[in-house]
Amino acid sequence: MTRQEMYTELEGNFEETRSWRRHLHENPELSFQETETARFIEGKLREFGLEMKTGIGGNGITGTLRGAKPGKTIAFRADFDALPITDEKDAPYKSKNPGVMHACGHDGHTSALLSVAKVLSQYGKDLNGTLIFLFQPAEETPPGGAKFMIEEGVLEGVDHVFGAHLASDLPLGSFSVGEGFRMAAVDKFAIHINGLGGHGARPHTTIDPLVIGTTVVNALQQIVSRKVDPLKSAVVTIGIFKAGTAFNVIPDNVTIEGTVRTFEAEVRDQVQEEIESIVAGITSGFKATHSFDYLRGYPALYNHPEETEIARRLFADLGPVAESEPTMGAEDFAYYLQEKPGTFFRVGSRTDDLATQYSHHHPRFDIDERALVNTGKAFIKLAEHYVF
Amino acid sequence: MTRQEMYTELEGNFEETRSWRRHLHENPELSFQETETARFIEGKLREFGLEMKTGIGGNGITGTLRGAKPGKTIAFRADFDALPITDEKDAPYKSKNPGVMHACGHDGHTSALLSVAKVLSQYGKDLNGTLIFLFQPAEETPPGGAKFMIEEGVLEGVDHVFGAHLASDLPLGSFSVGEGFRMAAVDKFAIHINGLGGHGARPHTTIDPLVIGTTVVNALQQIVSRKVDPLKSAVVTIGIFKAGTAFNVIPDNVTIEGTVRTFEAEVRDQVQEEIESIVAGITSGFKATHSFDYLRGYPALYNHPEETEIARRLFADLGPVAESEPTMGAEDFAYYLQEKPGTFFRVGSRTDDLATQYSHHHPRFDIDERALVNTGKAFIKLAEHYVF
Amino acid sequence: MTRQEMYTELEGNFEETRSWRRHLHENPELSFQETETARFIEGKLREFGLEMKTGIGGNGITGTLRGAKPGKTIAFRADFDALPITDEKDAPYKSKNPGVMHACGHDGHTSALLSVAKVLSQYGKDLNGTLIFLFQPAEETPPGGAKFMIEEGVLEGVDHVFGAHLASDLPLGSFSVGEGFRMAAVDKFAIHINGLGGHGARPHTTIDPLVIGTTVVNALQQIVSRKVDPLKSAVVTIGIFKAGTAFNVIPDNVTIEGTVRTFEAEVRDQVQEEIESIVAGITSGFKATHSFDYLRGYPALYNHPEETEIARRLFADLGPVAESEPTMGAEDFAYYLQEKPGTFFRVGSRTDDLATQYSHHHPRFDIDERALVNTGKAFIKLAEHYVF
Amino acid sequence: MTRQEMYTELEGNFEETRSWRRHLHENPELSFQETETARFIEGKLREFGLEMKTGIGGNGITGTLRGAKPGKTIAFRADFDALPITDEKDAPYKSKNPGVMHACGHDGHTSALLSVAKVLSQYGKDLNGTLIFLFQPAEETPPGGAKFMIEEGVLEGVDHVFGAHLASDLPLGSFSVGEGFRMAAVDKFAIHINGLGGHGARPHTTIDPLVIGTTVVNALQQIVSRKVDPLKSAVVTIGIFKAGTAFNVIPDNVTIEGTVRTFEAEVRDQVQEEIESIVAGITSGFKATHSFDYLRGYPALYNHPEETEIARRLFADLGPVAESEPTMGAEDFAYYLQEKPGTFFRVGSRTDDLATQYSHHHPRFDIDERALVNTGKAFIKLAEHYVF
Repeated sequence: MTRQEMYTELEGNFEETRSWRRHLHENPELSFQETETARFIEGKLREFGLEMKTGIGGNGITGTLRGAKPGKTIAFRADFDALPITDEKDAPYKSKNPGVMHACGHDGHTSALLSVAKVLSQYGKDLNGTLIFLFQPAEETPPGGAKFMIEEGVLEGVDHVFGAHLASDLPLGSFSVGEGFRMAAVDKFAIHINGLGGHGARPHTTIDPLVIGTTVVNALQQIVSRKVDPLKSAVVTIGIFKAGTAFNVIPDNVTIEGTVRTFEAEVRDQVQEEIESIVAGITSGFKATHSFDYLRGYPALYNHPEETEIARRLFADLGPVAESEPTMGAEDFAYYLQEKPGTFFRVGSRTDDLATQYSHHHPRFDIDERALVNTGKAFIKLAEHYVF
Repeated sequence: MTRQEMYTELEGNFEETRSWRRHLHENPELSFQETETARFIEGKLREFGLEMKTGIGGNGITGTLRGAKPGKTIAFRADFDALPITDEKDAPYKSKNPGVMHACGHDGHTSALLSVAKVLSQYGKDLNGTLIFLFQPAEETPPGGAKFMIEEGVLEGVDHVFGAHLASDLPLGSFSVGEGFRMAAVDKFAIHINGLGGHGARPHTTIDPLVIGTTVVNALQQIVSRKVDPLKSAVVTIGIFKAGTAFNVIPDNVTIEGTVRTFEAEVRDQVQEEIESIVAGITSGFKATHSFDYLRGYPALYNHPEETEIARRLFADLGPVAESEPTMGAEDFAYYLQEKPGTFFRVGSRTDDLATQYSHHHPRFDIDERALVNTGKAFIKLAEHYVF
Repeated sequence: MTRQEMYTELEGNFEETRSWRRHLHENPELSFQETETARFIEGKLREFGLEMKTGIGGNGITGTLRGAKPGKTIAFRADFDALPITDEKDAPYKSKNPGVMHACGHDGHTSALLSVAKVLSQYGKDLNGTLIFLFQPAEETPPGGAKFMIEEGVLEGVDHVFGAHLASDLPLGSFSVGEGFRMAAVDKFAIHINGLGGHGARPHTTIDPLVIGTTVVNALQQIVSRKVDPLKSAVVTIGIFKAGTAFNVIPDNVTIEGTVRTFEAEVRDQVQEEIESIVAGITSGFKATHSFDYLRGYPALYNHPEETEIARRLFADLGPVAESEPTMGAEDFAYYLQEKPGTFFRVGSRTDDLATQYSHHHPRFDIDERALVNTGKAFIKLAEHYVF
Repeated sequence: MTRQEMYTELEGNFEETRSWRRHLHENPELSFQETETARFIEGKLREFGLEMKTGIGGNGITGTLRGAKPGKTIAFRADFDALPITDEKDAPYKSKNPGVMHACGHDGHTSALLSVAKVLSQYGKDLNGTLIFLFQPAEETPPGGAKFMIEEGVLEGVDHVFGAHLASDLPLGSFSVGEGFRMAAVDKFAIHINGLGGHGARPHTTIDPLVIGTTVVNALQQIVSRKVDPLKSAVVTIGIFKAGTAFNVIPDNVTIEGTVRTFEAEVRDQVQEEIESIVAGITSGFKATHSFDYLRGYPALYNHPEETEIARRLFADLGPVAESEPTMGAEDFAYYLQEKPGTFFRVGSRTDDLATQYSHHHPRFDIDERALVNTGKAFIKLAEHYVF
């Protein structure tokens, strides 16, 4: 049994939702700098009459809709920061902010969730429980906005949490869900090997950090090939190896930088620990010294099975529901799912129109805006299930 | 039996020789740009009345002294270019040319040989044979000046060739000689490995040139450790390994640059060939492509035993004669010794005065100028032996 | 709606089933040598009045039960070979065949399936379709028995195929199922590197295959670390590296042997191809020659989703049904599932009794024999679902 | 001025000397087991009337000839052990001791030195000083006989020491000498890496010592390629790498054995220390443990310049004197030269006769026996120079 009128209303608001999205699209703001975007969201939530809290962990905002009757507390999250990319598409709503662009669809997430807030704000009296709308800044840039909003307590009392992402590789009208680890923990590391430079003709008077560094890189391959459970996933990629400035001079030191991708927390710990152990062992064996910095980015995103199954079932009323493949990419919604059960789902935004087919982060990225309505419907489905 | 008056005269000219050296020291010119220096030398040779040829292979000059009677033809060489180093010493004759400095002593070689030319020019009638004074530019910078002067025929008819180098690690008054290979052939190579870059989280969609590159560097160690005769010398040094610009992006390609030092020609050939073979094998095994550039610098300097023994014996009249150790450094006098028998010897310029103790190429390098006379005497000893 | 009497009957036959199992347990036969075991099975099938075919692909046997009415054809498989392990347990039914033991539970699979055949043989007239009982030799030793039985046509006309395995890590009374790849493809490879041996003091006169071999082993790590999709599983293990007999002699050649474990066919192909490419590249780069042998063992075992889901649902009537974890182990039932949809499930045989807790292939391995009845019930559930 | 009669006498004794050599050749004894050979030598020395000491450091013997007048003390050494090689040549004096053979020429050294002792014993009254004849066992097998004889004091009071070796690659009648390091220090090492074995499909549950071992071998290449002065010689050869017995089982441990060859004591120390450091660093980095055994064999053989020059000059009276090339082979005469100045020279034993052309240690090795006389003359030359 569905409250059909909520969906009808949402559809009726399409043009308004689209105008919000286009406003945001024209005025993108980088992570941690989204003050105007936040002001826009606040204006809307105030207009809808929601209980509101602003400046949470930076530019974060919550809108709360409390039902007349007691029940569960459900949180929906939309992110709203943009990327340092120059908008190259031809569209009237192209970015006006040079070098900044909503190239990932966060403008869509936010306007869709605002639209949901507007519709549901009229049904407050029917609610058995509470809905919290989380508008989160700074998803694109670690340490991200989620962490800080959670630290300020936005998940207190929350029973389940949900997040959506538009997807340019998924057909308009369809959804994808998947339980378990779907996105990776993303970490960054830097190794500095300090040897002793000298003349290229006199290696014996040096401690050659370059060859020590190449030995380290080769040895690190064994972490994935030998040390991590083959039934689990891990990536150790070296992106930078920087050594020397003259062909005939042995440099003093070498810099190696890379990224680690994992799902399980214990694999993440293991890989970090093994890198450090191997680097320490080899450099000491060759009498060099080293420093090792390991910065943890977002954790792996884990979709809880029960909420995922519920979403799978509910969304089937709205359109085809695909099983999402895991990826080694990252998303700070993972922090919410570490705290509360829930799921992160994707909403198709691709049509035959080439404009909707560019990959996320592409300078010509765009969506079919009807996906805003589909995103909204998915959230309403979840609201209906849990608190109506 | 020595013609003592030649040595006395040389000593008597000390102040003039020193003034030449100081003039050159104040007005250093970089390799291939030594036009004023050449003009200065030409002026002197003209003054001494020597048969002269200029503009040889660039700024090269020869002065020829033909004896009345037939005999051997002996060539003496001095180089005259300076280095791109800023003179940091406190001396009235400090370089006036910012960023350019005679930090290796070539000014001394040239003024000493000019002084020899001046003295001997008065003994032309006594000569049984011919003396050729080679004033050579561009020793410091490959391909060097020697090669071009030889190509223009300066060694035609020459029986023996000799060169001197001042030495800040050898006491004033002493000499060093040594037969066989004393300085190395110096080559340069560059390896470019072309893989296929991509996202650091998706190594399987790439051909990771960074790890292929580190594998190559490690494999190249086997050339010296396994492939070159342990009783012979070779160095393969990688000075540059440049890969990537972002910690989480697998780069498209990698650049590896290094130097090879060897003595024997067949070892030089072998090392070049082995590097290429190993690079080709490994990159093809990992499905990357590569390019390999190998530039040969100066050949190894080989002092011929007979001429070295003669120098050893002759110089013993002048002061202590040490045995020189071979070094992996380079010197384009090697080209002359590939063509004609001869030897390259060193003349001490170090005293207890700290100013004379800096290593060559140091911004405070200087000599005890009495070494100019000693250098001159050594050449006269050789002249006396061969053509008087 | 179940035909309860079939299950009751099966339970009633417990002691007889157990006596069969103990008879087989006392008389184990190695892979490809199971003539007496085959004779025993044939005797039973003849007794039950089943249509029988013997000597299939070696010692293989099929018993066929054709229903009166048309319908699907379902195949059930039990394997019946033993292992070259000395039975160390204390039990009256301990192996009488020295050095040979049913240490994996195949005796149980066979007696359970015989028991099913006996019960169902009485219900032939009620069948809508056909049941084929596959008694397969030589599961433990590649190339295995499955391959040959399939080549002789045992799967012709079969719609679905099922196999069971007792599990000493699963509690008695429970089952485990799982869809997708659950067991790995297991391959074997051998690399021979031929260099040129010689005196340890004269490496330059040799082509040192030992260091080339260690370079190869290190390079092979990149297959798993860089070349295989991190979201897929692969193992490349070197088990043997054999080089040299004297500390001061460089050997002529090196032998490297290992195993590859994969799930997806394309990953299997990729790993084989990459090993060969890397070995060829490195050995050629170092001027050695090589040979490469790659022997494919069993393919990966893939449980089809539909049949797995049916088994999951049906077995829930019998006891708890766990989700099976994938393992990198192997099983030649994989061949059947390459040809026909079906699933391979596990049946718990572990109790608090220590005797039932040893791992498979342990010299004291044993089962709680009530698991025979549970195995039988699982097959009857499937038969009931498909052909009753 | 030479005492020509000594040389004439030596020549006159040729047939006797040859008969001694053939006797020894027919009755070879292995290192440390040369009791009959020692008894033979003792018999001769007693016959010549020399002051004798036996059983020195095992089977060692000295014969001393004291001059009437004071002067220098000179020691001449001959070794007398044979090799575990089966004599394959066709000669009447072929080894009668199966599996044992004088395949290196020590029988010749000993009979030549006996012959010298016989001749010179008649000139005792003319001697200005003392001659010591050192007959040394066990040269072929470390720790060798020299060490023990020196420990018992045979070099006390000795001023100069000389040793000869027959050479099948040097023409009969010629000699070779060379100053400086001519033979290498020869050491042996064994590395045991203890990991944690396990199933090849589950590398993450193991510490794979095989791949750690290959990493160690590759890293050890850097000792020669980066850490040892390129102007000095060093060899680090791995002769044995032994790991694993089954292709699909990760072994518990790995054994790596090799040899180190060096000349200078500090390079020897350095290489030993670097191997241990690298092994310790890498194994600890990979969490394996290791043991490291390093056994020092003979030191490098250093010919002192002055004595070498004297020998060069003296031998020129006897025949052509070549310059010997350094080799990475070993000889325990090195111990004497560590204590006292002297030189080790070689005496040509090769003619056009194929029988004399086999390399030392070959099962058909033989000498032209006239080389015995030449060896004797060389010793007499030295005696004449120092003590007559």
